[in-house]
Amino acid sequence: MDLHELIDLLPDGTVITDADLLASYRQDHANDPDAGTPVAVVRANSTDDVATTLRWAHERHIGVIPRGAGSGLSGGATAVDGCLMLSTERMRAITVDPVTRTAIVQPGLMNAEVKRAVAEHGLWYPPDPSSFEICSIGGNAATNAGGLCCVKYGVTTDYILGAEVVLADGTVLRLGGPRLKDSAGLSLTKLFIGSEGTLGVFTELTLRLLPAQPPQSTVVAGFATLAGAVEAILAITGELRPSMLEFMDSVTINAVEDEMRMGLDRNAAALLIARSDAPGQFALREAELMVEACEKAGATEVFHTEDLEEGEAFTAARRFAIPAVERLGALLLEDVGVPLPRLGDLVTGIEAIAQRHEVTVSLIAHAGDGNTHPLIVHDPTDPAQTARAHEAFGEIMHLAIELGGTITGEHGVGRLKKPWLVDQLGPEVLAVSQRIKDALDPHGILNPGAVL
Amino acid sequence: MDLHELIDLLPDGTVITDADLLASYRQDHANDPDAGTPVAVVRANSTDDVATTLRWAHERHIGVIPRGAGSGLSGGATAVDGCLMLSTERMRAITVDPVTRTAIVQPGLMNAEVKRAVAEHGLWYPPDPSSFEICSIGGNAATNAGGLCCVKYGVTTDYILGAEVVLADGTVLRLGGPRLKDSAGLSLTKLFIGSEGTLGVFTELTLRLLPAQPPQSTVVAGFATLAGAVEAILAITGELRPSMLEFMDSVTINAVEDEMRMGLDRNAAALLIARSDAPGQFALREAELMVEACEKAGATEVFHTEDLEEGEAFTAARRFAIPAVERLGALLLEDVGVPLPRLGDLVTGIEAIAQRHEVTVSLIAHAGDGNTHPLIVHDPTDPAQTARAHEAFGEIMHLAIELGGTITGEHGVGRLKKPWLVDQLGPEVLAVSQRIKDALDPHGILNPGAVL
Repeated sequence: MDLHELIDLLPDGTVITDADLLASYRQDHANDPDAGTPVAVVRANSTDDVATTLRWAHERHIGVIPRGAGSGLSGGATAVDGCLMLSTERMRAITVDPVTRTAIVQPGLMNAEVKRAVAEHGLWYPPDPSSFEICSIGGNAATNAGGLCCVKYGVTTDYILGAEVVLADGTVLRLGGPRLKDSAGLSLTKLFIGSEGTLGVFTELTLRLLPAQPPQSTVVAGFATLAGAVEAILAITGELRPSMLEFMDSVTINAVEDEMRMGLDRNAAALLIARSDAPGQFALREAELMVEACEKAGATEVFHTEDLEEGEAFTAARRFAIPAVERLGALLLEDVGVPLPRLGDLVTGIEAIAQRHEVTVSLIAHAGDGNTHPLIVHDPTDPAQTARAHEAFGEIMHLAIELGGTITGEHGVGRLKKPWLVDQLGPEVLAVSQRIKDALDPHGILNPGAVL
Repeated sequence: MDLHELIDLLPDGTVITDADLLASYRQDHANDPDAGTPVAVVRANSTDDVATTLRWAHERHIGVIPRGAGSGLSGGATAVDGCLMLSTERMRAITVDPVTRTAIVQPGLMNAEVKRAVAEHGLWYPPDPSSFEICSIGGNAATNAGGLCCVKYGVTTDYILGAEVVLADGTVLRLGGPRLKDSAGLSLTKLFIGSEGTLGVFTELTLRLLPAQPPQSTVVAGFATLAGAVEAILAITGELRPSMLEFMDSVTINAVEDEMRMGLDRNAAALLIARSDAPGQFALREAELMVEACEKAGATEVFHTEDLEEGEAFTAARRFAIPAVERLGALLLEDVGVPLPRLGDLVTGIEAIAQRHEVTVSLIAHAGDGNTHPLIVHDPTDPAQTARAHEAFGEIMHLAIELGGTITGEHGVGRLKKPWLVDQLGPEVLAVSQRIKDALDPHGILNPGAVL
């Protein structure tokens, strides 16, 4: 492939072909072993750069893999041999409008950077993936990312009012804007959100913001059984709207405690970390009700704090769970979700699958919305164990589907979960999705092999 | 057209061909004078009926106009000569799940019926068009309807987690479900919402619910100038999150007072009705801050009540505004929205347009989110005045577009606003929308002539 024309079309230093640098863009955090090698990485500086790159690739039928920060966990940004990686990491502008409570951001900013920039205006961008320090807002939009506060505040799509998107052929679309209400034409903004770079590339997002989150009360409860923890979860969500309701099982508790030494109960079968951000003394009242619910469900230990730093420390422990469990071995990362009443069935089903396949599964969950992350630990140098881990990976997704759930609550399908997508959606929904894909990207250059 | 086959395919009494009955289905509340006459009305009893009807029409390339309750204000359900009207009014089932805080509803229920059914479980479905007693939940989804609480709680799309949709060719898709988080595949649910029956017909919706809304405090303030009212609006939204922030101008105040005799200040240039549903004593505190903001902005009269019935009476007065103004003459109903900082420019611009064209405009607004309803009053028997009213109608939309706004915040484009859609979205966005339409409805049978 002759890249000189593309190199000439773009500002100096935009196209990278250095082999070592290329190698660092081959995989995202899913570490897909089947990743190919790109011919080049385009680090776009502007919408124009994105449009120029796509127009060039479209004319030549060259695959383009859009990439935010590369923190994806489903292989949505895995390189394909001969493709271009199109990174938006350099596009980092943000303007905040406190009157409309909106921000206009470019895709390369980290989620945490967006949060900090709007906080300066007393505002809050709620969606908070655990990886918020290292995941980009563009990637969040592409995967319709979730996080810890979603149980009360919803997911990324609920906070995107408009976007600039570049289509496969380089056409730049401006969609929506800083208006809470807009019923003019098809909801294209929402269609692009969660499409994992298969329909277009976000070059700008209009975010809806909320006033700063009130201080949170925090409750931490240990349980001797998984069933007790699940009972407490259902009791809490049936009565209250926690701003966070997180779950860690025994494997996770011990992995986190190994790293952080914060005195978590290593003997507990499960730990819940719940928070309330109800205004004023209502947070305290909600925390008290959560303490009661945990005690009633047989918690062995319940701890309650109004101290913000202490509460943040427990939240950080939960956020650190995936890196902590990674110390135990290679991980297959699950992201299955079920309607909340089926959470108990999912948890016990996962336990049974782990036992049957003799693999260690660490279970973390955004329990309040039924979204779980079973982390399947395995030794990649042991082919038999790795095969068993992969079998468990598929079975867990089938279990979630059987329980009326989803194979991915917030990470996206990418390449790793693609074989199971048809089992969840059915062939008709996939066929309709493919028709939309074909209408917008007739040569199939955008993120080939992902999702569809 | 030989309807016997369709009549035979559907349960007895489903297909109506009686001329008088057909006539009653020709128009929605937009009263489009160009409405055609349908060959039949299908009152579907089930998803099967909808699928059968569409399959039959698809094979014969017959236009089908989906219709909810016929309360639309943009002519989205205007009949076309020779078409079938497909009404979902008979599909009225609902089941509520308090554990997941979701409801599964069929499209024919009125918005108010959904609210009442979920309220029995202590739950709340927020979106609240003024027409909530006479508009169907299916129509709400089709137009991405808004309402009075959107300023704090968002619009219909924010509360739909899943749907069953029948495509033009009769294919039944099941999308999403009772899961707050689901990143599996394209966001098709969201694409169908707001597509005004051009892509598919909703036969079931999975709604996200909230706990019951706390009791609201209410503030009513009169202003001697429009500028004063706008200043108060910006002061309130800049500092607080009102659960409602509504505006009526002098024409509206007097039309409402003529009907309701509740002692509204007939001399005021503008009236604001604001509410707070912050928990506990925070509602009172927010109300006090809203009173202060109104007084500071020069309100001539400010009234504050914690009494729920009194607050509801003012809200009902605002909801009654369109019917009240209808007594003054025929209406062209606008639904333009702008980013909040441009609200003052919109209001003064509308006043200027009304004066220039010598037409009466009654201005109502969901002021807190910048969505206004200028109602252009005219005498349809006076051709010159009617022509001037139509000119004003177009100019108001162009003004909204110039101010970075939308031609429709919540009613939809339908047929009445279609000529202006390209001016807002631009030809590229329309072309992409048409490609999606063609991919899903290749014969163009669904709601022909609406939106695209």
